[in-house]
Amino acid sequence: MKRSWTDSVRPESPGPIRLQGWLHHYRQLARVGFLLIRDAAGIAQIVTDDHALMQKLAALPHEAVLEIEGEVAVQTQAPRGAEVRLRQLSVIAANGDPPLELYRPVMREQLSAKLDHAALSLRHPRRRGTARLAALATEGFRRHLQSQRFVEVHTPKIVGTATEGGANVFRLDYFGRDAFLAQSPQFYKQIMVGALERVFEVGPVFRAEPHDTPRHLNEYTSLDVEMGFIESHRDVMAVLGSVMSEILAAMSTFEADSQFVGNWPTVPNQIPIVHFEDVRRRFGGLEPDLSPAEERQLGTWALDKYNSAFLFVEGYPLAKRPFYTHADPDRPGYSRGFDLIFKGTELVTGGQRLHRYKDYVVALQERQLAVDSFSGYLEAFKYGMPPHGGFAIGLERLLWRLLDLPNIREASLFPRDMTRLEP
Amino acid sequence: MKRSWTDSVRPESPGPIRLQGWLHHYRQLARVGFLLIRDAAGIAQIVTDDHALMQKLAALPHEAVLEIEGEVAVQTQAPRGAEVRLRQLSVIAANGDPPLELYRPVMREQLSAKLDHAALSLRHPRRRGTARLAALATEGFRRHLQSQRFVEVHTPKIVGTATEGGANVFRLDYFGRDAFLAQSPQFYKQIMVGALERVFEVGPVFRAEPHDTPRHLNEYTSLDVEMGFIESHRDVMAVLGSVMSEILAAMSTFEADSQFVGNWPTVPNQIPIVHFEDVRRRFGGLEPDLSPAEERQLGTWALDKYNSAFLFVEGYPLAKRPFYTHADPDRPGYSRGFDLIFKGTELVTGGQRLHRYKDYVVALQERQLAVDSFSGYLEAFKYGMPPHGGFAIGLERLLWRLLDLPNIREASLFPRDMTRLEP
Repeated sequence: MKRSWTDSVRPESPGPIRLQGWLHHYRQLARVGFLLIRDAAGIAQIVTDDHALMQKLAALPHEAVLEIEGEVAVQTQAPRGAEVRLRQLSVIAANGDPPLELYRPVMREQLSAKLDHAALSLRHPRRRGTARLAALATEGFRRHLQSQRFVEVHTPKIVGTATEGGANVFRLDYFGRDAFLAQSPQFYKQIMVGALERVFEVGPVFRAEPHDTPRHLNEYTSLDVEMGFIESHRDVMAVLGSVMSEILAAMSTFEADSQFVGNWPTVPNQIPIVHFEDVRRRFGGLEPDLSPAEERQLGTWALDKYNSAFLFVEGYPLAKRPFYTHADPDRPGYSRGFDLIFKGTELVTGGQRLHRYKDYVVALQERQLAVDSFSGYLEAFKYGMPPHGGFAIGLERLLWRLLDLPNIREASLFPRDMTRLEP
Repeated sequence: MKRSWTDSVRPESPGPIRLQGWLHHYRQLARVGFLLIRDAAGIAQIVTDDHALMQKLAALPHEAVLEIEGEVAVQTQAPRGAEVRLRQLSVIAANGDPPLELYRPVMREQLSAKLDHAALSLRHPRRRGTARLAALATEGFRRHLQSQRFVEVHTPKIVGTATEGGANVFRLDYFGRDAFLAQSPQFYKQIMVGALERVFEVGPVFRAEPHDTPRHLNEYTSLDVEMGFIESHRDVMAVLGSVMSEILAAMSTFEADSQFVGNWPTVPNQIPIVHFEDVRRRFGGLEPDLSPAEERQLGTWALDKYNSAFLFVEGYPLAKRPFYTHADPDRPGYSRGFDLIFKGTELVTGGQRLHRYKDYVVALQERQLAVDSFSGYLEAFKYGMPPHGGFAIGLERLLWRLLDLPNIREASLFPRDMTRLEP
């Protein structure tokens, strides 16, 4: 008999079935045993009142790998309204009982235990559900961009020049020379605007930031976009709004293994926009950036005033934005850079970039950066580059905020932080 | 007027149009000027007999960024059978003439010049066409796997243990500790079989191999797959065959900007399979691996005998395969590892893996590797792992062979080799 998946266990498809999967949990009453079997598709309930089978099942550890055959039958109290009456059971692999209780709806273990035992904790419906949601998010991201002629690219992660000035960059030995890990694909995606006009990348970025907080990772997945022929950063913001809608639409197709929270905000047709100058007026102070506390307050304000979990802040002071940021020609000192605040946290950074070679030379000199060390990048602007801009979404940060995970490390399969390199 | 793309310049859509793009080439005859404008979609021909416009165009450098308005009209000799009669021209950005002749059907520059000036050479129809083909390849790869319940994952590139033993690995400083760049996502994709059963990853891998040849890159894009509940490596080979078909199907939808070769082999329904033992019998010798020359001969043989550009070689000797390779229970000394030879070059490596913890302990000890340093990985096998296997396709290698590029560096946007870290 051909193998079926657990989501074939449905009242409308009664009859014989063969399943393979993990022993998620086994519970035995006096005369009947209930086995939950877990596979790629989800979890199904298997029942038996056969004494020999019950004995065999009771002796098995959690996470044993099983193959079963049986009959699908209607059972309103089982997942999807059906269960399998067990006929045959064989054990593909079994060892001891694992050190984590993966069958509980919510794992009770500390975060550090979950991360130390990632090979096991990722099997938990919530952890593997988060992984599937991450895949759906990137699927939605790609789908929208591909429909708008964006081309996916892969740019190098080993680079000869520290991307944005030198701080917080990992250094490596490259055949006896110094090289660095890319902090972002920024330079490359801009170069590719010259070649393909509209590009995106899904890939790792590396930040040697010495922060040990629930919101930082030292390696994460960046969803990067860059596009040419824009009027201003507002065109980029419009694409970002559509991208976010499609990401959330894709994620909402997720069918939870179990009681996974799958209820999230919608993206308004017009995400509200405030200018940084107005934000500063509201909060007072002179800082050219927003503190996490200010971002939280803005999140609450946007929810109250606009009923929106999303808020654009545009026009950040040039001083706090990278050298390639385009100035706002109408407001001296301010830029065409923006952030997207989601639930009170910066989720996306973007903006219009400089596109004229001579503007780059001035910008680099103002920051006392050597023009020469950026020559491979600057060549793109020397020979015809249109006005362009883009943004970068932190995938783990999106999942962390969307699913209200207590720590961003739970949004990464194998997080890297200042002390964690394993597994 | 809304901006259109150059592929809207078609005989069936006459009338006014507005385009934006790069001055690909301008050719002037006595009374008429022909402008080729290039954008994300391709190249369109713009004509004018207006003296002032002709003068303005003649003065512009290649790669100037332009906006034009005009009228689409039938012209059988133009690309797509239509051209635009120019009415208005404005210059968005223009500098000097670039150091590469991007308008020639085939660039005449040496490879090193093309790579040094990647910011420009990637604008050439062939180079940017290769980039678009790479995107189509990954699209086909994903599409097939997603239809078969594979979930895309992102695993860490900074790792604490050198993946497969320690040689040819880049070392970096991770907050004062030694860390390494992942040579493959092998361990992580296997762990994820425990969590999701079927996974894939598209991401960078890093090989510190000191080879300077036309077939080596030190950073490349790996298309990785891993799946559980297989009978043997043959199940993995079947998935790989379907994946290759869908990759080539996706690439065949490519609409070339110009005279780009877009004619490639089909994947046979059954890719022919030979056993390594038979190959050795054919070639003689005792080597436990195939030389590049032997792979080329096999490629020719498969084409002659089976009319197939693809050939599976299965059963490589265990000695030459990594420690996690599953032995062939029927042929001592041989493995369930395979390669896919494409046009006489190894394109894919794969196989069935060990799935029992105790087998790993033996395999590591036999190779004198410390079991302890793999504990985070081995935990996946300690608590129930099904028989599983997978493969990895080198994306640049696929493009290199498929497009018959002289050097694999032309299949990478910004190649990394022993001496090249820029741009």
